[in-house]
Amino acid sequence: MSSAAPAPAPEEQPPRPVRFGIMGCASIARKLARAMLLAAPAAAVAAVGSRSEAKARLFAADNGLPAAARLHGSYEALLDDPAVDAVYLPLPTSLHVQWATAAAARGKHVLLEKPTALCASDLDAILAACEASGVQFMDSTMWMHHPRTAKMRELLPADVGDVRVINSLFSFRANEDFLQNDIRVKPDLDALGVLGDAGWYCIRAILWAVDYELPKNVIALPEPVKNQAGVLIACGATLYWADGKMATFHCSFLTNLTMDLTVIGTDGTLHVTDFIIPYEEKSGPFSVASRSNFAELHTGWVPQPSKHVVTTDLPQEALMVKEFCRLVQGIRDGGAKPEGKWPAITRKTQVVMDAVKASIDKGFESVDVVS
Amino acid sequence: MSSAAPAPAPEEQPPRPVRFGIMGCASIARKLARAMLLAAPAAAVAAVGSRSEAKARLFAADNGLPAAARLHGSYEALLDDPAVDAVYLPLPTSLHVQWATAAAARGKHVLLEKPTALCASDLDAILAACEASGVQFMDSTMWMHHPRTAKMRELLPADVGDVRVINSLFSFRANEDFLQNDIRVKPDLDALGVLGDAGWYCIRAILWAVDYELPKNVIALPEPVKNQAGVLIACGATLYWADGKMATFHCSFLTNLTMDLTVIGTDGTLHVTDFIIPYEEKSGPFSVASRSNFAELHTGWVPQPSKHVVTTDLPQEALMVKEFCRLVQGIRDGGAKPEGKWPAITRKTQVVMDAVKASIDKGFESVDVVS
Repeated sequence: MSSAAPAPAPEEQPPRPVRFGIMGCASIARKLARAMLLAAPAAAVAAVGSRSEAKARLFAADNGLPAAARLHGSYEALLDDPAVDAVYLPLPTSLHVQWATAAAARGKHVLLEKPTALCASDLDAILAACEASGVQFMDSTMWMHHPRTAKMRELLPADVGDVRVINSLFSFRANEDFLQNDIRVKPDLDALGVLGDAGWYCIRAILWAVDYELPKNVIALPEPVKNQAGVLIACGATLYWADGKMATFHCSFLTNLTMDLTVIGTDGTLHVTDFIIPYEEKSGPFSVASRSNFAELHTGWVPQPSKHVVTTDLPQEALMVKEFCRLVQGIRDGGAKPEGKWPAITRKTQVVMDAVKASIDKGFESVDVVS
Repeated sequence: MSSAAPAPAPEEQPPRPVRFGIMGCASIARKLARAMLLAAPAAAVAAVGSRSEAKARLFAADNGLPAAARLHGSYEALLDDPAVDAVYLPLPTSLHVQWATAAAARGKHVLLEKPTALCASDLDAILAACEASGVQFMDSTMWMHHPRTAKMRELLPADVGDVRVINSLFSFRANEDFLQNDIRVKPDLDALGVLGDAGWYCIRAILWAVDYELPKNVIALPEPVKNQAGVLIACGATLYWADGKMATFHCSFLTNLTMDLTVIGTDGTLHVTDFIIPYEEKSGPFSVASRSNFAELHTGWVPQPSKHVVTTDLPQEALMVKEFCRLVQGIRDGGAKPEGKWPAITRKTQVVMDAVKASIDKGFESVDVVS
């Protein structure tokens, strides 16, 4: 008897994995499936649901999912699976409110692709369903979870000072097939087009830079580009805060891959040019110029900007899954409440996006941001 | 006799130096005086003119000017100096039209500090005077002459493709003394404030990126910052071209030193973050991302951006002086006509600046750019 190890106390047992159901086999779901495998043992892929079981089976095989993963031929069946704790939902935006609220109503925690909804009132329906069921909500904005993001956030107050001017640019050059057929250019699927897809990141980055203080108003840039169906494929806006801060962003499906965030403050300037997806998976560079002066006779800069590189063992999307799992485990196993920070950030992003869309629709008038 | 070297043929003699008169002892004139010494033997500082001979003497001593440099106690006296070929004119902007036209009328070539004039019609008076006298005109926008600028220009068509979106940011954080006393915040001296000082560079960079095609209209960003005298100390604008290109700039005396030019095209993206004054005097970095794609599963970029560094033996302001001297020597010694490229670029910059100022004055209305 003395040779038998004592049973571990309950609080010392490793938490059980969060069992994910992947709801839809979109291209982006492949990246998340890999992230869930990388995030083991916190995460496990328990099930895949698609409009046909054959599609779910193909997805499971293509993405190396465990043989035990259950394959469901409908989203309903996935939501009825009692061995699913949480859903990852990458469906077209127009389906989010229906399926995210259904998932929450069945007690599933919700990791929702961006843009989270077509408008803030749809998002509010989703958030209300999550709150009513006591489940965690998080949007799938991966770069938020890269350790670089935390490092930049840490440096901003001392090295950049009072943030005054922000610029964010996100574009990629879509090919002809994308511009004709991708869900992101279809009015019935992703009516926000490039604003919802790429603009989401710019708006989030701007809000991140000001610690999520909402702007007071936004004015869309004139002359956005729309496709024949009226869906935005290039647009931008300027955001204004009560204290004089301002931010400009531009997003496009028509120009070369660009992911810039520039934050200028009274004391410094932050530059990052791959903020959404780092150039390399395991490291993220950025630079900070702080208290930059002209050299004697204005022949150079003193000091020069500092270059930083933040490394990570796990890619940012796996870190996102892990953080989501930590919160879900706290609720499921520890009686914790859902973390309110994530839905609050989501909602602010959506509210600003709504205001930009309204400004475009109103002929580039100033639109107040109403929280 | 056979041991005597033959006299060189006239066309083989090195050109005589261009004899500069420095007209005013502004702080920036110190940088140019050094540039003229570095640009020897093409350039020589022949004279300094100031409102007092004592100031001119102090300037000559402080800046290591040759003992032979003549010291004039008035601008008139400098212009009457027959041994001055060209003037460098760093006076406050409100004095440019008077003194640049006077210099041209006396047959002096004109290297003029920016902003070149308070408005395009004043500039036109200067350019007309230069044309009437057959003298060379050039504005003192130094970065145009860095070999990095030529290298970036060379790469743009193939590596960036059709330019669609440009962003330029130039700010420096002025101290309290500057904000109270510098000529650039005084309505009677530099009425364009930060727009003329820092905005000039942004506008020039934007025009450079599109090979000097004028935008069709501009819209100033709302909520510029003005000082108590009504002079702009932070402002910005968006520029629109007929083919859908757009550019945004922001300039400020209130935030950390920032000198960004970002050019996004169909095929690539150019980033330079010290375009006006390189971090180090003898090298200029920039990066180009060309035909950037997402890596498999969107876990990185393929290819990654290329980093470039262009070195130079002489600082950009000395290269500017050398180029100006080359043109002046061609006119003075070789019967050439003045080079029309430089005044044409100056005028386009001024015309866009005028339109931005008009948009601010008209409450941020769209203002057509009239060439």
